[in-house]
Amino acid sequence: MRNQKIPEATIIRLSVYSRYLTQIDKRGLITISSGDIAEGVGVSPAQVRKDFAYFGEFGTRGVGYNVKDLYHHILKILGLDTDWSVSLIGLGNLGLALCSYKGFKERGFNITSIFDNDPQKIGTMIHGIEVMPTEKIVEVVRQNQTQISIIAVPSGVAQEIADLLIEAGVRAILNFAQVVLNVPPQLELRNVDLAVNLEVLTFNIENR
Amino acid sequence: MRNQKIPEATIIRLSVYSRYLTQIDKRGLITISSGDIAEGVGVSPAQVRKDFAYFGEFGTRGVGYNVKDLYHHILKILGLDTDWSVSLIGLGNLGLALCSYKGFKERGFNITSIFDNDPQKIGTMIHGIEVMPTEKIVEVVRQNQTQISIIAVPSGVAQEIADLLIEAGVRAILNFAQVVLNVPPQLELRNVDLAVNLEVLTFNIENR
Repeated sequence: MRNQKIPEATIIRLSVYSRYLTQIDKRGLITISSGDIAEGVGVSPAQVRKDFAYFGEFGTRGVGYNVKDLYHHILKILGLDTDWSVSLIGLGNLGLALCSYKGFKERGFNITSIFDNDPQKIGTMIHGIEVMPTEKIVEVVRQNQTQISIIAVPSGVAQEIADLLIEAGVRAILNFAQVVLNVPPQLELRNVDLAVNLEVLTFNIENR
Repeated sequence: MRNQKIPEATIIRLSVYSRYLTQIDKRGLITISSGDIAEGVGVSPAQVRKDFAYFGEFGTRGVGYNVKDLYHHILKILGLDTDWSVSLIGLGNLGLALCSYKGFKERGFNITSIFDNDPQKIGTMIHGIEVMPTEKIVEVVRQNQTQISIIAVPSGVAQEIADLLIEAGVRAILNFAQVVLNVPPQLELRNVDLAVNLEVLTFNIENR
């Protein structure tokens, strides 16, 4: 399996399929067809089969997919067959919201360290985790072997935080700061731009 | 131009291209090739040309695209040649973060009304906007002719908020609550799942 060949849209759909399979499993269904998955999440059956085909055969022709097997197979593909330790940098409103975000824990992402440079916040406890000063990033992230970090700091300081995380050896950064970060090519960087979501909506409003 | 034919991934890339064109324009460049755009945003030149092809011809062969014209053309496609009034429901940490999110205003999205049901928050001013009780949603959203709403309330109350917004006549909802909303088919609904972003990263970590 080679990363380059698989479109990001496929990865995102796999995530969506797996959430749908959780619902189906809760309803007690044992098997499901690609057509049912397609209808459930709003894509074409051909798209579902094409997405799955990147990862080899995992259904039985005419019988469909075993719901639990397919779910676990997709989780494994997404790297979610294990829990991930995540560090959060920046405890503004967004950072606070992310600390309480149930969707992370549900998918095995545990925020295990929180950093901020505000003396009022340092030392306080958020869901049982002590907020630490940003000078501790390299030491703590290295010690915890945290592989994923979330940057939720103002854009003006995002690059220096990224540099500390790189020094600490993280492998992936999810960046909410609205600034282009310079990172080495081997680091996985994903920039979240919330306005894009609104733009998909305005496009759809205008083109219906 | 038909909505169904155009993949959402194309819409999202158009948004990315337009942001890149802003940078290019600031550097004072007049024309740009699809190859330059592709390199700048990290996709293939064929992808750029394919994305543009959905909307007819808008470059000159051998000369490339006029940066400003292309930028405005894309904005128009995305429905961003006009400003949009947005109502925000829910002033928790996420809602507060969204109120200060610069990326919305930059793209013409103005939060013009804010609603919450917390008596402590009602009547307070956020960036010059008075927080109103949720009972006022239908009246105020209708009066402002707001077409887009953001739901940032706890999942348990998201559906009743959605019902009020539908009654008020909004055309699109961006939903941050982690719950499946029932909305009429003509309403544009987009659910934001922040965990998906982390899953793209873990996939990439595991498959490099």
